Order: sequence, then C-alpha cells, then structure tokens
Amino acid sequence: MCPAAKRKPTQPPPKSYHHGNLRETLLAAAESTLAERGLQGTTLRDVAKAAGVSHAAPYHHFASLNDLLAAVAERGFVALGDAMERVTATPDTRERLLQIAQAYVGCARAQPARFRLMFAPQLTQGDAYPALKRASHRAFGFLMAAACAHDPVKGPELALCGWSLSHGLSNLLIDGAFDVLPTPVADTDALVRQLAARALGPL
Amino acid sequence: MCPAAKRKPTQPPPKSYHHGNLRETLLAAAESTLAERGLQGTTLRDVAKAAGVSHAAPYHHFASLNDLLAAVAERGFVALGDAMERVTATPDTRERLLQIAQAYVGCARAQPARFRLMFAPQLTQGDAYPALKRASHRAFGFLMAAACAHDPVKGPELALCGWSLSHGLSNLLIDGAFDVLPTPVADTDALVRQLAARALGPL
Repeated sequence: MCPAAKRKPTQPPPKSYHHGNLRETLLAAAESTLAERGLQGTTLRDVAKAAGVSHAAPYHHFASLNDLLAAVAERGFVALGDAMERVTATPDTRERLLQIAQAYVGCARAQPARFRLMFAPQLTQGDAYPALKRASHRAFGFLMAAACAHDPVKGPELALCGWSLSHGLSNLLIDGAFDVLPTPVADTDALVRQLAARALGPL
Repeated sequence: MCPAAKRKPTQPPPKSYHHGNLRETLLAAAESTLAERGLQGTTLRDVAKAAGVSHAAPYHHFASLNDLLAAVAERGFVALGDAMERVTATPDTRERLLQIAQAYVGCARAQPARFRLMFAPQLTQGDAYPALKRASHRAFGFLMAAACAHDPVKGPELALCGWSLSHGLSNLLIDGAFDVLPTPVADTDALVRQLAARALGPL
C-alpha cells in the first residue's frame, strides 16, 4: 500500500508549500540533485521534490529545466568570480595568479556537477542566457586583469595558459582520470600551485 | 499508418542483416550517433538503427549501452595512443612534446563527443572495462616517456602539466568556452604550441 493510500479521507491534503525565497530554494535543490544524480538524471520534477514544493512550483521562476540549470551555472560563475575577486587583495602578482588557479580548481572540486554544468554548450552557446554570459565574462575579467598585472606584455597568453591548465586539472581531478598515475595525488593544492608555477615561468 | 502496418502479409519480414564485421559497424554507428545526439541522447536502439541492423543485433557484441560506449572510448584512447606513438619518431624531445599536445587537442577536436566519453566516470571508474583502462594507460605511458626523455628529473611534473594543459584546452575549445575572449582564436594549432611551449619552460 503506498503512503498516499494510507491517508484517511478526513486528513487534509499535503500542505501547499510556501517559501520566503522559492527561487533560492529551487537553486539549492537543483545543486543537490545534480550532485546526486548528475545532469543526465536530473529533471525539473526531481528538483521540485528535493525542494519540497509542488511539481508546478518551479514554473513560477523557470520556464524550463534548462532555464533553471542556466541559473545554477550562473551561480557557479558568480562564486568563481567572487573567489577570484578576493584574491586581488594579494599584493604579489605571482602569488595572486597561483591563488586564482587554486580557487578555480577548488570551485570545481567543491561542486563537480555544477562545474561541469558551467561549461555545458546547451547553456553557454547562443544568447539564451545573458546573465550566465555576464557572470562568466566577469570571472574571466578577473583572471585577465591579474595576468596583465603580472606581465603587461604576455598577460593574455598567461591568462589562457592558466585557464586551460586549471580547467584541465579540474576536469581530470573530478573525473578521477589521475587514477592512471603510478602514485595518487597526495596534496591537490600543492599540485595546482606546482603546475601553475611552471606555466607562470621562472621567478 | 506506421510503415510496418503497410507491409502486405505476403511480404517477407525485414531482412535480417548480416555484416562481415558487425562489431566495427556498431562502433562506427555509435560514434556518429554520439556526434549527432550527444551522450544524453544516445540509446542502443539509435545505434542499431544508424548501423542498419535489428534492435537485437548489438547484443551479439555488447551486453549494454555502457559496454558499447566503453568500446568507443577505448577506440578513442587507442587512436590517441597511436597519434602519440607516431610522434616518438621526432628526434627533438621538446618538439616531440609540442606535437603530443597538438595530437591530444587534435583528437579532441576531431571527435568531441568521443573525447568527452573517454573521461566519463561511469566508464572509467571501477574495474568494469579493463581494455579501456589498458588503452588509457598506454596513451599516458607515451606521454610520460616523452616527458622523461626531455627532462629525466622533472618528467613526471612535465607530463602532468602538459596533460592538464592539453586537456583543458581541448575541453574549452570543444565546449566553445573561448567565445568569452575579445578576439576569437584564429590558429588553434599555433595556440596549442604557444601554450605548451610556455608549460615546457624556456629553451
């Protein structure tokens, strides 16, 4: 007998949920659902269930699953941009870039499913999600500014190299690809700094 | 009226397809289906249809969609390893590493969906696909050998740095993430060599 069938006819129907901030609740539920089931296994219905709201509730804020996912990806870029912005207080420009690499890989490792989503072509291509685009431009802007502060001539090359390296490291780490190594990576932060220092060139 | 219903009772059933090499046909069909629909949109039934065989035919070789996908990913690593092996003929160890980076990004750009599959945790984690694991170890072995031939002391660091950089570049390129750049990448091969040269350090 399913739980619903056990309910006595005199009992009230399940309460209709009200949230002070439904949008935030849905975004948090989407992040946890993604973390648990991955992109392929996530539906708008799952997210509503995880948020404890009705199936129809997400439509108050998001017209489709992709709209909701784009908002999650945007939050990811905002968090990444914020982490990069905090680093600008570091006076040493080399140390600043090392910390940006650490922040990048740190964001990926903290929320792998969200990190993958941030680069999903179905969200990032085209002009459907301008807020997501603005958030990714902002994050890239911090990286470029830090790279150009370190080396005004080779800044753009440095930014691309650092981004590619950090992005590759992030993906290889969260996908478990380093299992191919003869010895496991003991200290991820140290590895990120070591490889980023190599990309930065000699002191 | 569906096509099956139009068939006259006296007509023979659809011919049962025979292929000289059904396995290869299925793998090629899986690659084209993946390229067209992505991982999320690919089913064993789609692959059978693209191969022009019955729905049941794939089961002669693969117990599940994941088994088929693991064989596709294995082919990807074999192709990558082969590309890396060809480079070992290059006498200059620095040039060899630059060409390995080019080969890596080239494999990713030639078949983006297959490249993504090669690192899909549902295939690479655990011990379900030992042939896939062997193929990835072989490819990594060529990279490590080339890195250690160039720098016997810092070879492992160099290999990890080159791998991360090439992997990140590959993903950012195939996902279209470089759209954020103020000017588009004009010459991808030149960019790969430029960034890999930076990771290699000064001459």
